Amino acid sequence: MKRSLGAKTVLYPAPVLVVGTYDSEGRANIMTAAWGGIACSKPPCVSISLRAATASHGNIMERKAFTISLPGEDNAAQADYAGIVSGRDHDKFEVLGLSAARSDLVDAPYVAEFPLVLECSVVGVHELGLHTQFIGEIADVKADESVLDAEGHIDLALLRPILFATDPGAYYGVGSLVGKAFSMGKGAAG
Amino acid sequence: MKRSLGAKTVLYPAPVLVVGTYDSEGRANIMTAAWGGIACSKPPCVSISLRAATASHGNIMERKAFTISLPGEDNAAQADYAGIVSGRDHDKFEVLGLSAARSDLVDAPYVAEFPLVLECSVVGVHELGLHTQFIGEIADVKADESVLDAEGHIDLALLRPILFATDPGAYYGVGSLVGKAFSMGKGAAG
Repeated sequence: MKRSLGAKTVLYPAPVLVVGTYDSEGRANIMTAAWGGIACSKPPCVSISLRAATASHGNIMERKAFTISLPGEDNAAQADYAGIVSGRDHDKFEVLGLSAARSDLVDAPYVAEFPLVLECSVVGVHELGLHTQFIGEIADVKADESVLDAEGHIDLALLRPILFATDPGAYYGVGSLVGKAFSMGKGAAG
Repeated sequence: MKRSLGAKTVLYPAPVLVVGTYDSEGRANIMTAAWGGIACSKPPCVSISLRAATASHGNIMERKAFTISLPGEDNAAQADYAGIVSGRDHDKFEVLGLSAARSDLVDAPYVAEFPLVLECSVVGVHELGLHTQFIGEIADVKADESVLDAEGHIDLALLRPILFATDPGAYYGVGSLVGKAFSMGKGAAG
């Protein structure tokens, strides 16, 4: 039997996306968002949703670009901080002791110390209500050598990505392997 | 030092969204998608991206509604199967021994046996390339009593949601608590 919880934003898992932008004067900013994900395979696109009230929203509207720096478990507190305070009042890179690396592909900075980065140029803007959804075409994905295996593939045990649980709001690590995709289902047909 | 991996759809974690729809003759179908997530808080909206070639895409275009049934770890193989074969050739509910429950709020069915369900009506359609992104306004979230705690909140240890790792394609469970959101970052400022 199912119980109605009402019309609310509950979905597991949500990602932890640290969005990097420049403001009109070239100051680097980051903010953390959980509303987003991959939106298209070809061209490769990601979507992120931000409130118009945020500094990052204005930056993206002006620069038409953003990055996503993905925190590992060790970066979780920094990512959380970047979601609490505004870039209008704080230089979050400086406060957190992080380095803003300039993307050579899009007009936005990323967090040099975070293990995985997506560099994106804006190809769509959708006003949905409280949030504006930005569609970013992925120009490149960059990963720290330290999270790649010998074949150059991302090793999840080294990347140690985190996820956001919407209710209650908390970050979790990735658990045990459940099965291979496009494979474990082949035996599920009754 | 970061290595370029190219323009590809890599992001951790992605969700495992089992999308429920009716076709023009009222037959219930499900397919599994990983490209999506919450897109707006007010009104509460979710986005899912599907290829135009899928049966589900045509169903949503016609019915303007879909559901998302979230699999627990025990449902992972069923969810994977629903992403492998087409609803044009298979009655996936029947093959998997699952029950199609009719939503009383939107024109779409959901998987009665899966622990968490979002019922959505389509409020936006964005052609991004290979994938069409559907914005669904969440009419209700329904959860099995068995995944709720005494206060009626979702208990992750009971829900046991899974996540999709994009590279390599695999499903994982949720790991250990890393910290509370909007809280653990307060001590991160240097």
